[in-house]
Amino acid sequence: MTNTIPSSDLIARFAAIVGASDALTQAADITPYLIESRGLYKGTAPLVLKPGSVAEVSQILKLASETGAAIVPQGGNTGHVAGQIPRAGAADIVLSLERLNRIRDIDPVGNVIVADAGCILADIQKAAEEHNRLFPLSLGSEGSCRIGGNLSTNAGGTAVLAYGNMRQLCLGLEVVLPTGEIWDGLRRLKKDNTGYDLRDLFIGAEGTLGVITGAVLKLFPQPLGHQVAFAGVQSVADALVLFDKASSLCGPALTGFELMPRLGVEFTARHIPGVRDPMDTVHAWYVLIDISTSDSAESAERMMQALLETEISSGLVENAVVATSEAQRKSLWHMRESMSPAQKPEGGSIKHDVSVPVSSIPAFMAEADAAVMKAIPGARICSFGHMGDGNIHYNISQPVGADKDQFIARWREMNAIVHGIVLRYNGSISAEHGIGQLKRDELADVRSPIEIDLMLRIKHAFDPAGIMNPDKVLKVR
Amino acid sequence: MTNTIPSSDLIARFAAIVGASDALTQAADITPYLIESRGLYKGTAPLVLKPGSVAEVSQILKLASETGAAIVPQGGNTGHVAGQIPRAGAADIVLSLERLNRIRDIDPVGNVIVADAGCILADIQKAAEEHNRLFPLSLGSEGSCRIGGNLSTNAGGTAVLAYGNMRQLCLGLEVVLPTGEIWDGLRRLKKDNTGYDLRDLFIGAEGTLGVITGAVLKLFPQPLGHQVAFAGVQSVADALVLFDKASSLCGPALTGFELMPRLGVEFTARHIPGVRDPMDTVHAWYVLIDISTSDSAESAERMMQALLETEISSGLVENAVVATSEAQRKSLWHMRESMSPAQKPEGGSIKHDVSVPVSSIPAFMAEADAAVMKAIPGARICSFGHMGDGNIHYNISQPVGADKDQFIARWREMNAIVHGIVLRYNGSISAEHGIGQLKRDELADVRSPIEIDLMLRIKHAFDPAGIMNPDKVLKVR
Repeated sequence: MTNTIPSSDLIARFAAIVGASDALTQAADITPYLIESRGLYKGTAPLVLKPGSVAEVSQILKLASETGAAIVPQGGNTGHVAGQIPRAGAADIVLSLERLNRIRDIDPVGNVIVADAGCILADIQKAAEEHNRLFPLSLGSEGSCRIGGNLSTNAGGTAVLAYGNMRQLCLGLEVVLPTGEIWDGLRRLKKDNTGYDLRDLFIGAEGTLGVITGAVLKLFPQPLGHQVAFAGVQSVADALVLFDKASSLCGPALTGFELMPRLGVEFTARHIPGVRDPMDTVHAWYVLIDISTSDSAESAERMMQALLETEISSGLVENAVVATSEAQRKSLWHMRESMSPAQKPEGGSIKHDVSVPVSSIPAFMAEADAAVMKAIPGARICSFGHMGDGNIHYNISQPVGADKDQFIARWREMNAIVHGIVLRYNGSISAEHGIGQLKRDELADVRSPIEIDLMLRIKHAFDPAGIMNPDKVLKVR
Repeated sequence: MTNTIPSSDLIARFAAIVGASDALTQAADITPYLIESRGLYKGTAPLVLKPGSVAEVSQILKLASETGAAIVPQGGNTGHVAGQIPRAGAADIVLSLERLNRIRDIDPVGNVIVADAGCILADIQKAAEEHNRLFPLSLGSEGSCRIGGNLSTNAGGTAVLAYGNMRQLCLGLEVVLPTGEIWDGLRRLKKDNTGYDLRDLFIGAEGTLGVITGAVLKLFPQPLGHQVAFAGVQSVADALVLFDKASSLCGPALTGFELMPRLGVEFTARHIPGVRDPMDTVHAWYVLIDISTSDSAESAERMMQALLETEISSGLVENAVVATSEAQRKSLWHMRESMSPAQKPEGGSIKHDVSVPVSSIPAFMAEADAAVMKAIPGARICSFGHMGDGNIHYNISQPVGADKDQFIARWREMNAIVHGIVLRYNGSISAEHGIGQLKRDELADVRSPIEIDLMLRIKHAFDPAGIMNPDKVLKVR
């Protein structure tokens, strides 16, 4: 399916919907919307539209459906798979949700917040906090990513273990369909079995089925107790045993269980200002354990103490430190969150965002490590992530002194090796980042033809004119 | 769309797939599959097929798609909205999953169980327990309902507050599509953002998009602490305040919060053997509070004690009893679960399964009570349910001495009154039972045309031949 290349007349008609000052046509104004953070993709666009209301979004999509112009919705432009970036060489129009950034309502008794899609995640967290509530979605880019993007990619982050990803955190949606019709699904219900689950279809669809313009999100009580520990263990297998112990002991009070290799700790201590190794002993692997309790500060302390005392005596935990202040807790989390940026100064890094069944993590990592080291002797594997979710950011830094470009040129080859092993463990090649442009062709390789066909049927049924974020997730035939 | 009436030749071809002994054609054998538990619907069918393998299910659907014969999947036949019952006067073929009842695998470290769709819910609970794990889905019919039906209706029950409904409890599915193709989505991943959410589309679709044949379900650690209390409060508004306090104190350890009226306690004490009012004081409303903790038995005790001591002193709780043994805990839950059957001996009962935003429960109930009492003076309202989920089973027993049939004849009229108020509170006319046949025409009234249209587009895209459970959920145009 091909889209219309908008004439100057059509561009003027689109611009008139939002007004001249919110319709960007100059290269200098448009450029920031065309490049994603890693610089892997650069798109082209004749126009960026910044609607100020849901009605304007509706008019834009209506005009696009009538004329066949392609629309690429964009939030904070923090996505890692270029789903938010217009196609290179095409004439897609970028639809930025940034001006739709109002918190529409907050109900602390009902534990819901209703927000425009363009609200920045940190602003939603803050609004919840002001009402003594928690909105648990938390990720590195929370200061600039927007909730519509979080919804469209079914974002995960560091609190998935206890609170789930965006699908679990969202009760209702407002979506503008490709025709311009508005689906008002802004329901605040915890239980509602009335027909097909449209909400979860739009969540994670990466803007290919419609434009999310508003959402009802769940809030939670602010926990009273919060404990964070950093523990050294001998192996990934031991980390898994420790996870099983922690999760049996703490149940849903275990709010984070993050795995890090020695190399990652060294990288962060070396490159990230203010980060230092909190222990004077050296360990092959580390875990960050986060426990939150609602009833009292003491109960989190009791749990953490019980866990560490038992597992230090048993020898499973080699050494551990427990943060004793909020500043220390933040500092331990800061080390974990710096794992990815700390790789940059070490040269090229080939990245994977994979998941496997939790119980398969040790076997998967051993097999992947062997295959990668065989392919690139001297490669430095910095694999870390949300162990409790089975989600590993399996990243490979270049050998010391190697040529960066030559190393990065092997991205697809390394993907094939790592993803091949992931698939043998029935894992996922995109645990939390989505498909976008980066993994689109690979998706067709790793999913069965019938699964791809079902997705295409949904795409055609919802967007027959093919105007919504074309060629993202799926190549429409 | 109309379906083929199967000729005797076609019936023989279907029967040959499963073998004569698992193809029922005699009225006496077929009848139990045609009537649902409340006796509101009785269907007709020339044939009941009991396939013994996924391959046989596939062959059945392939033949149905080729010939246009209608297929009605059925699990334990416990559904409340007749989704599992063939249409009256048509010639739908019932496809019973009862022979597909094998637990395929259990992985206690990975916290998953893989089960055939025909497994009885209680058997799955038991298998989990044998591995010291919990499968939390729990509902009245758990001894006979089958997991495929629980999935197809996105079942809820009494543990939704902490563990969610079936969508939250399922990681992966195996589905036979109307064409007979098999979608293997049996993934064990907690995080997987690779394309559209097909899983949640089949869950809750009530067998109209395909036949679920297997599922990967989540398991949880068995809690060590378990406390159940029964507390008397003055009003629904006070019960809501108590819920807010309990949920802030206990967080995810609050595993149940159920509301019951005085009338319901009287009905159960009067009619259900072994049930008696556990308090010697009389209260307008009661709540059952269930707290589960993973770390120790004591922490559940501490929470329950802290909650009740504080709220008895504050006057919010008028009186309370705490169960001190497993037998007492079961007995309190038995009273709650007997609310529905205890209405039967009191004559006709017009039932609603609705939800509203949690914070709107008191206002909704006051308004509904006034409207119902105005329409039927002397009606006895027995509204109870999962307060923490906003889900109320708003049931109306006939006035004492009234004619049962005349009362039941006002079912639709009462529905219109109650559901009208539910909709003003942006609630749901089916919180957990689904749509089936019972609420199909009402769905089209209460949802926007665009929402119904999106559902129809999905139906047509997945089942173009119109063979899957026709005229359930949606009337296909």
